[in-house]
Amino acid sequence: MPNVRVIHGPNLNMLGVREPEVYGHTALEDLNGQLEARARELGLDIEITQSNCEGEIVTQVQACRGRFDVLIINPGGLTHTSVCVRDAIAACGVPAIECHISNIYGREEFRRHSLVADVCAGQISGFGTDSYLIALDAAARVCRRGRA
Amino acid sequence: MPNVRVIHGPNLNMLGVREPEVYGHTALEDLNGQLEARARELGLDIEITQSNCEGEIVTQVQACRGRFDVLIINPGGLTHTSVCVRDAIAACGVPAIECHISNIYGREEFRRHSLVADVCAGQISGFGTDSYLIALDAAARVCRRGRA
Amino acid sequence: MPNVRVIHGPNLNMLGVREPEVYGHTALEDLNGQLEARARELGLDIEITQSNCEGEIVTQVQACRGRFDVLIINPGGLTHTSVCVRDAIAACGVPAIECHISNIYGREEFRRHSLVADVCAGQISGFGTDSYLIALDAAARVCRRGRA
Amino acid sequence: MPNVRVIHGPNLNMLGVREPEVYGHTALEDLNGQLEARARELGLDIEITQSNCEGEIVTQVQACRGRFDVLIINPGGLTHTSVCVRDAIAACGVPAIECHISNIYGREEFRRHSLVADVCAGQISGFGTDSYLIALDAAARVCRRGRA
Amino acid sequence: MPNVRVIHGPNLNMLGVREPEVYGHTALEDLNGQLEARARELGLDIEITQSNCEGEIVTQVQACRGRFDVLIINPGGLTHTSVCVRDAIAACGVPAIECHISNIYGREEFRRHSLVADVCAGQISGFGTDSYLIALDAAARVCRRGRA
Amino acid sequence: MPNVRVIHGPNLNMLGVREPEVYGHTALEDLNGQLEARARELGLDIEITQSNCEGEIVTQVQACRGRFDVLIINPGGLTHTSVCVRDAIAACGVPAIECHISNIYGREEFRRHSLVADVCAGQISGFGTDSYLIALDAAARVCRRGRA
Amino acid sequence: MPNVRVIHGPNLNMLGVREPEVYGHTALEDLNGQLEARARELGLDIEITQSNCEGEIVTQVQACRGRFDVLIINPGGLTHTSVCVRDAIAACGVPAIECHISNIYGREEFRRHSLVADVCAGQISGFGTDSYLIALDAAARVCRRGRA
Amino acid sequence: MPNVRVIHGPNLNMLGVREPEVYGHTALEDLNGQLEARARELGLDIEITQSNCEGEIVTQVQACRGRFDVLIINPGGLTHTSVCVRDAIAACGVPAIECHISNIYGREEFRRHSLVADVCAGQISGFGTDSYLIALDAAARVCRRGRA
Amino acid sequence: MPNVRVIHGPNLNMLGVREPEVYGHTALEDLNGQLEARARELGLDIEITQSNCEGEIVTQVQACRGRFDVLIINPGGLTHTSVCVRDAIAACGVPAIECHISNIYGREEFRRHSLVADVCAGQISGFGTDSYLIALDAAARVCRRGRA
Amino acid sequence: MPNVRVIHGPNLNMLGVREPEVYGHTALEDLNGQLEARARELGLDIEITQSNCEGEIVTQVQACRGRFDVLIINPGGLTHTSVCVRDAIAACGVPAIECHISNIYGREEFRRHSLVADVCAGQISGFGTDSYLIALDAAARVCRRGRA
Amino acid sequence: MPNVRVIHGPNLNMLGVREPEVYGHTALEDLNGQLEARARELGLDIEITQSNCEGEIVTQVQACRGRFDVLIINPGGLTHTSVCVRDAIAACGVPAIECHISNIYGREEFRRHSLVADVCAGQISGFGTDSYLIALDAAARVCRRGRA
Amino acid sequence: MPNVRVIHGPNLNMLGVREPEVYGHTALEDLNGQLEARARELGLDIEITQSNCEGEIVTQVQACRGRFDVLIINPGGLTHTSVCVRDAIAACGVPAIECHISNIYGREEFRRHSLVADVCAGQISGFGTDSYLIALDAAARVCRRGRA
Repeated sequence: MPNVRVIHGPNLNMLGVREPEVYGHTALEDLNGQLEARARELGLDIEITQSNCEGEIVTQVQACRGRFDVLIINPGGLTHTSVCVRDAIAACGVPAIECHISNIYGREEFRRHSLVADVCAGQISGFGTDSYLIALDAAARVCRRGRA
Repeated sequence: MPNVRVIHGPNLNMLGVREPEVYGHTALEDLNGQLEARARELGLDIEITQSNCEGEIVTQVQACRGRFDVLIINPGGLTHTSVCVRDAIAACGVPAIECHISNIYGREEFRRHSLVADVCAGQISGFGTDSYLIALDAAARVCRRGRA
Repeated sequence: MPNVRVIHGPNLNMLGVREPEVYGHTALEDLNGQLEARARELGLDIEITQSNCEGEIVTQVQACRGRFDVLIINPGGLTHTSVCVRDAIAACGVPAIECHISNIYGREEFRRHSLVADVCAGQISGFGTDSYLIALDAAARVCRRGRA
Repeated sequence: MPNVRVIHGPNLNMLGVREPEVYGHTALEDLNGQLEARARELGLDIEITQSNCEGEIVTQVQACRGRFDVLIINPGGLTHTSVCVRDAIAACGVPAIECHISNIYGREEFRRHSLVADVCAGQISGFGTDSYLIALDAAARVCRRGRA
Repeated sequence: MPNVRVIHGPNLNMLGVREPEVYGHTALEDLNGQLEARARELGLDIEITQSNCEGEIVTQVQACRGRFDVLIINPGGLTHTSVCVRDAIAACGVPAIECHISNIYGREEFRRHSLVADVCAGQISGFGTDSYLIALDAAARVCRRGRA
Repeated sequence: MPNVRVIHGPNLNMLGVREPEVYGHTALEDLNGQLEARARELGLDIEITQSNCEGEIVTQVQACRGRFDVLIINPGGLTHTSVCVRDAIAACGVPAIECHISNIYGREEFRRHSLVADVCAGQISGFGTDSYLIALDAAARVCRRGRA
Repeated sequence: MPNVRVIHGPNLNMLGVREPEVYGHTALEDLNGQLEARARELGLDIEITQSNCEGEIVTQVQACRGRFDVLIINPGGLTHTSVCVRDAIAACGVPAIECHISNIYGREEFRRHSLVADVCAGQISGFGTDSYLIALDAAARVCRRGRA
Repeated sequence: MPNVRVIHGPNLNMLGVREPEVYGHTALEDLNGQLEARARELGLDIEITQSNCEGEIVTQVQACRGRFDVLIINPGGLTHTSVCVRDAIAACGVPAIECHISNIYGREEFRRHSLVADVCAGQISGFGTDSYLIALDAAARVCRRGRA
Repeated sequence: MPNVRVIHGPNLNMLGVREPEVYGHTALEDLNGQLEARARELGLDIEITQSNCEGEIVTQVQACRGRFDVLIINPGGLTHTSVCVRDAIAACGVPAIECHISNIYGREEFRRHSLVADVCAGQISGFGTDSYLIALDAAARVCRRGRA
Repeated sequence: MPNVRVIHGPNLNMLGVREPEVYGHTALEDLNGQLEARARELGLDIEITQSNCEGEIVTQVQACRGRFDVLIINPGGLTHTSVCVRDAIAACGVPAIECHISNIYGREEFRRHSLVADVCAGQISGFGTDSYLIALDAAARVCRRGRA
Repeated sequence: MPNVRVIHGPNLNMLGVREPEVYGHTALEDLNGQLEARARELGLDIEITQSNCEGEIVTQVQACRGRFDVLIINPGGLTHTSVCVRDAIAACGVPAIECHISNIYGREEFRRHSLVADVCAGQISGFGTDSYLIALDAAARVCRRGRA
Repeated sequence: MPNVRVIHGPNLNMLGVREPEVYGHTALEDLNGQLEARARELGLDIEITQSNCEGEIVTQVQACRGRFDVLIINPGGLTHTSVCVRDAIAACGVPAIECHISNIYGREEFRRHSLVADVCAGQISGFGTDSYLIALDAAARVCRRGRA
């Protein structure tokens, strides 16, 4: 069964609590529940974690190598600042989907540039927590193409 | 039945012919066929056109007002240069999904900025012609949320 | 009788509908009616058109050469992006008044620069749809100076 | 009777003497005479002063609060450098019309940016000393709208 | 017989009329006559059109694919603003020669950058209307190399 | 008894009147009363003035030399534009505390840079009119350190 | 009793040892002792920690939510690079005071910009280790205002 | 007898006191004495003033028109910020010599650009207070050339 | 015996696996073996660690203080983003050698600037994994000079 | 007989050897032979030299004054860095044609700007070594125009 | 007798011939004659050379070390591009006066920055060829101060 | 026997004399002696020259082609300005080691960018004159790898 890894970056544990007018009212565990349900429908294995620490995320991304078919990652604030996460994505050799809850291009200047975008296979942003579900649909397509 | 409008911008009529290592081998009519098939599966009406002319696209986007539930638009080269297309999207009052075949963030400097991104509901890029199919799945979700 | 040409650029056909908190509630035909009435008071012939297409506007501006005494132009989104409209204004040899409904200097960064400003005789912006009426008064003065 | 305040900024006392190819041959007192005559025609009270000192202009702008209906201001060289004049305009609570004799967008780079533009109601520039007369016509309209 | 396509961009229909100190006194039809005469001498078929509309030019460039050996294009003001024309040149697969009447590097800042230069085979600029004739000579050489 | 000088820059005389959502409702005289009361508690002599004129402020800052132990200065709009005030602070040889009512780093781009910051001993901003009272507490500490 | 949280960022554990000409000779434990003593005087509960790890600091800031009245934070080098710490401060919903030992505006270019400044209530910098004590006084005022 | 006007800008009244390692130990009155003595030797009338106020300096520069043969001006901190002083120099019609005690190109970034340089006849900087004496020698040459 | 500390930054644990065309085929443990062998030849004690976490690296660098003679550090992606690592190197008081496997100046724009370079004694880059061995030779020289 | 001077700049002596995928396989002597042959056909005298030294090239360009009708110059790497070569071209008073083998606009950022372009009559680039032959044709036209 | 060295940079051998509206009609030998005459009046030994070659100028500047009291240098176009000339001036240990015929701040953008300015004792520009004579007067003062 | 070429750029003949606090007290001939001694130890032939002239250095670098195994080059001030030296290094086909005495990243802004870095095999900087000796060790490694 194809295998999908989801990594939530810093501050996503505050989902539902933090600036709900930007990030919505769904808590992280609820979102994760939706993702697991949708993965079952799509016939995908899924593993989900969250971390506030760049180093931990780097190690988790590296560990995808040879173990997962697709990586869905929302690096949170690290999107705009971390060359290390970028390098880990490039190093792990797994197609990655960059995913953002809010439309990062409609916010502060410093959020409009993604350091990881050009090492990812694709990017989905702006659909609220639905961005993750759309990313999961996209992951299913990537798996199918990869097998075809 | 929810109504989705797809607008292909300049040079997308060259799909399958133009730089296939970037844009793939699927011709535009084939992609449109896939979109119509998928729309049927999702229970969506769909109307698709392509134009090389900014003025025509502006008029087509304006015409969505009150007639469509979601607009999927790939403004091609106009993504990076057209304030007019941006203003038309903002003016038409329909939630828009920006869609790109290639990962615009991994290409030439002048392609890394989208003038329309922050007036769109969301953005999907980098999945090849699958970006459109993923956008259609996303459009279905947007319609459902809109009705809920 | 002096002759004034008014050209409305892209998206001005959405006037009254589009973002009324920025552009007001007057529809384009109403504004045009006000302009025609005011032109009669000022003893000016007036011809008014709107277009969403840069190429059409370029051709219309060129056609002013030798046929009109003043050109009033609101290039809409093309203000910030079109070297062609700029070149057409310089080429037509008719004094032009750049006119904007909103204060372009108090909006998004990319709207704060006008490519046509330095080939126009003058600029009027920020008075809502009154900007056009003030431009018409200014046009009457330009005609009088031109004849003096 | 509506009340208009005109403030001429630094070096406008040199009008008619200074670079006449840019600023024309009308002396400041002649321009002021024209403004007073036109104000009478429009049924407006008018008060006009000139100052070379930023601090004095700041104080004069502040003093408009509650005493004038419209402020017409040509901040001269301070247009491009004075946050204080900008703050005074914002603080005085009177709609302000920014006015320039020459087209500031067709001159040296450092003159192409106005620090006060986005706190003014509107801007008129490039019509020679007629810019002031057009601004006065515009002020009359602003008064009428304010009363309507 | 080798086949050359010449596309004149926006405002080139004003040639001879528009700013003759920059663009010279030769009208477009005269220049086209010179080009046709020179093409006959060089044994080249030639087809020449002019358009003020970006969309039309994009379509014309696309249509060169498989039908012409060389494209000579002067995109006028679009040189500096159109990603679409650039993409069309790259997509059409025909070697293109960028051609400018004036020396674009000795003019306004915004004219000093060409968006199409790096997808063209070569560039010729600054020789007045002779730039086109030199480009035609160059096109003959490109045809000969292509056949060798 | 240690001696503290407080200089309020341009537009601070509008305090309580000007944009109260940014600057609060306390009038300048009330703030000065609070400062004098707090100075008495801290055993400090205090002298407070306000000026809208850069030249006057420069002269006042120079005059601190040898007469005051600490200078608390809110240069208002001059913070971002005045090399002269900066030079005066450096020249007067008295430790200066830069003080701002609003958080200048959370406002318009041009307010985010302070020309005086690096010649001041320290900076306090964002606490509303309390910024001055906190600065006074800080001044007391600076005096004590200076004497120690 | 009001509750204040103090977080020292990376390298502050080297206080007294590291570049004493910039950061002074007080060791971190001594500074913490001074803070605890002053908190007692002000009737404030205080909790102080130091960490070199961005992820840990993000988690600690998040944990303030609902547990502390004010956060005093010196993010050290993260001030200039961490969107994550910024997002955590915005997410925690506790008024934060940004605090720096040295005047960050008088040092290297890359230290002159704070990513956290505009999500903090206020900023205090440049007073050596006294910056913290002044921040504590400011925190007391913030608590009082919050209760008023 | 030729007539030279010397204007010392803001903070030059602190000469000899202010940062003597940059500006030297000569007080302003001593420098003025040296200038008067040297003027006598060169057969020049001389008038010298100092002001901290931009508005005053603008008025003084304007007043040179028709009354002086050469203006020697050290605008101090206004060198880098004042469009008004620049405009006054251009307006007064008297050849001006820009003069600086320190080498402005070897100091802080913001001091390396002079707004007045390109409206002055020449510039002398870096020779300490001797810069003024050299400027006076240069003024004598300018007078002689002007008469020749 | 002189003491050398080697710290490998984020993603260097992927050496030999990650983009071998850039970083080569030597695994980290092999490189470490080579370093230990070469250290023995040079008569140096050596201690080597790798970490993906900025905070851990900061703590390890701080811990060199007084315990090692030279620090060889390859901060990986942190080279370009971490003020904290930079501050730790400056704080630890041990001469540091910055070391890179690839030539960072021949890669992506964001990799061409090193935040740590100017607090290191020297830099060696571009020699593949040999960069470390050359750095070790250099460290031996630094130790010898330090003792001389 | 008209007289043409060709100056090859630094590294052109490596033609045919250096990066043949960029500069082709023709050696400099072969290119010079082609140029001499073509000059004979066109009835032009020609003198060709190459130099690696900016100073020598400056002197050679100066020496064209009054001795040659056209200068064809490929300044090589000096194109992007030498104000001296630019000044020599402007000083020599001979119409100059800037010539490049490769398309300088399609290469590294630092090669995309030419310091000499705006003092040359025209520019030809991108046609491989044919650029020189096209430049020679263009030179013949320039000579003919000059004589007409 | 004090010893002054004058070095004329590239293209100054074209003086009187080259763009006389910028550089005047005096030939270099005439200017040198004036300098020698003035040097005799001032009691100075003088040695003057011109070179078009950066390397030669570097060597000449180095050779001043210990042999001249003052260096007067006009580096021509090298002013804006040569770090080597700058380093030579810093290395030679002789006070240098940078001298320009035209006002470099009133010309093209790339001429407004001098790489040598901050290693020179002072700068004189804009007085035509008189700049050199003024520089010689200044050199005499520098010699006198050096001896005092 | 492997063959190493060392080229010292402009001003390195001043070594030991020029700014010894930056470049140390070793004279060039002493450094060259150390290099020759170390080369003998390493079994390398070595040839060393110094030049102040860019053109000469370009020619010397070109001449390495086919004659040397490694080039060690310190281009001095040309590092930051010479596209020609860069092109020569790329053209000569010999692996080059860029070498700097001082840490160029810790000095003036204009010294922090190297034009040659990305065409060199590696870079060594900051170790004083030891940088050359370390480069020689590195060259020996490069030779060994090349032979392996």
